Amino acid sequence: MAANLGEFERIARFFAPLAAPEALQLLDDVALIEGPPGEQYVLKTDAIVENVHFLPSDPAGTVAQKLLRVNLSDLAAKGARPFGYLLTTALPHDRGDAWLEQFAAGLAADQKHYGILLLGGDSVATGGALTLSVAAIGRIAKGRAVLRRGARPGDGVFVSGSLGDAALGVLIAKGQDLGLSATYNDFLIDRFRLPQPRLNLGASLPGLASAAMDISDGLVADLGHLTRASGVAAEIEAAQLPLSPAAAAALAVDPARLGLVLGGGDDYELLFTAPAAADARLMDLARETAVPVTRIGRIVAGQGVRVRDKAGAEIAVPRAGYAHF
Amino acid sequence: MAANLGEFERIARFFAPLAAPEALQLLDDVALIEGPPGEQYVLKTDAIVENVHFLPSDPAGTVAQKLLRVNLSDLAAKGARPFGYLLTTALPHDRGDAWLEQFAAGLAADQKHYGILLLGGDSVATGGALTLSVAAIGRIAKGRAVLRRGARPGDGVFVSGSLGDAALGVLIAKGQDLGLSATYNDFLIDRFRLPQPRLNLGASLPGLASAAMDISDGLVADLGHLTRASGVAAEIEAAQLPLSPAAAAALAVDPARLGLVLGGGDDYELLFTAPAAADARLMDLARETAVPVTRIGRIVAGQGVRVRDKAGAEIAVPRAGYAHF
Repeated sequence: MAANLGEFERIARFFAPLAAPEALQLLDDVALIEGPPGEQYVLKTDAIVENVHFLPSDPAGTVAQKLLRVNLSDLAAKGARPFGYLLTTALPHDRGDAWLEQFAAGLAADQKHYGILLLGGDSVATGGALTLSVAAIGRIAKGRAVLRRGARPGDGVFVSGSLGDAALGVLIAKGQDLGLSATYNDFLIDRFRLPQPRLNLGASLPGLASAAMDISDGLVADLGHLTRASGVAAEIEAAQLPLSPAAAAALAVDPARLGLVLGGGDDYELLFTAPAAADARLMDLARETAVPVTRIGRIVAGQGVRVRDKAGAEIAVPRAGYAHF
Repeated sequence: MAANLGEFERIARFFAPLAAPEALQLLDDVALIEGPPGEQYVLKTDAIVENVHFLPSDPAGTVAQKLLRVNLSDLAAKGARPFGYLLTTALPHDRGDAWLEQFAAGLAADQKHYGILLLGGDSVATGGALTLSVAAIGRIAKGRAVLRRGARPGDGVFVSGSLGDAALGVLIAKGQDLGLSATYNDFLIDRFRLPQPRLNLGASLPGLASAAMDISDGLVADLGHLTRASGVAAEIEAAQLPLSPAAAAALAVDPARLGLVLGGGDDYELLFTAPAAADARLMDLARETAVPVTRIGRIVAGQGVRVRDKAGAEIAVPRAGYAHF
């Protein structure tokens, strides 16, 4: 039997020909449709699966929050404000009312936090893994969404927050001993369970960033998507990657863990490019939103993503993002 | 361990408190959000699962079409025109590119037929049954959507097309011999695989019907939803239920199969109520849209749904609709 295509090849071959102009060639992971006067709706759908995106040991409440937040993170990356969501649950028979009550409590907490409400849903039973899907809807002023295709040579490459935490956290949650303190372990597990969609920072990027997306598949894989959409290349300096104290400690124990920072995924941080003229305003924004913004490299002509160490030597990246098929 | 709540109790207890005003208390299975000037978007999400809503023997192309059509059927019931959809697939590992190619071809055929386009999606792998979810978006003139809550005593109860075909068809598709001809078997299997969303008829119901929904869980169960939402009761005459020649033949072999007509589900016909003044126009509409419209009973004061035989005796209904949990 011939090997199957990968996720992105399947999208390009089978689904891109079906896509509406509003779906932006499926390159942006969102669609923009006409909204009330002066506005557009931003549509996004993302599913999470037990043992892939979350673990059986994760509390039902944080599973609900992660489900919402991975979708809100995409809205943040376009500069949109979240509005509401549709929910589909495929529950194994062993998830009873007690689980569902905690799940709903997690949704309620995040609805309040992010100012969104449930617009509808569907529930089915599954004999397989718990699978949850949300279609999230955001709003943005017409024509202001920040797409992936606007990066230009000379632009800086920026990320919000810190990278690699979730990829380290899931290992700890699965029982691996990374040689860290209990406090660091808890911090990293929390980063895996509870992404922080950067909505305030994202809402300030229209007019400032030339291209933007969120990091879900891993920095290098996602920067690859952005540079392909823009027809450019990127050079990243590994020494500039923002690490939490916990992740820095993990890399001090084993420097090979840099691979998780570059390619582990599940970061849900913003990845964006901006011309030099935006630098000062970006640093102000980081202060105003209390979200670190770090310049990690630059856009150049060509194609591909290269990561260099302090000496300028290229670092091989171990994995090219999740492939869900 | 205490028994878990049923699907509708779970919705009422856990999800209704989370719902937006636009979600209409989750009573209509759709949300209405503000659209371009003078319009609203109608949002609907429905998932289908292998061995529940379709069979492993169903061609991938008709699985795709059923997935779209069960969602379009809800849009039809509100009087909306379909606009686009988001797609989430949870594929078992044995569904390779050949399956996906046929699946995409089914989507393409229905996109053309219904004038809709793909707006985005997500793909995950599952170790369980193939599960497919669509979030469909329609458009309708502001304030024109036909809701479930408008039925009034004295209104007639109407259905489109014929009832029970899909519930009989799935038995045949599973290998049961219902004692019918090969032609009838094929017709009924086709009705199970390929719902016919009544979009043209539905688009003519605003201003005419007092309440409307589509039949997915079975006539009696869904009429129960409509009458509860409206605060009324319904009386149905079994002799008036529209049957295809194939279904009529199946009931001639075994009259107990009336239970499948009343409660089998998967009909995806329109169920609506209208005052007597609308009768003439409804019969015109049936001719214009080439979709049969049959008056099957009436709305009365009280609560509940009663089905009566020719002698006026009440018929017990064997099942109260799908319960997916």
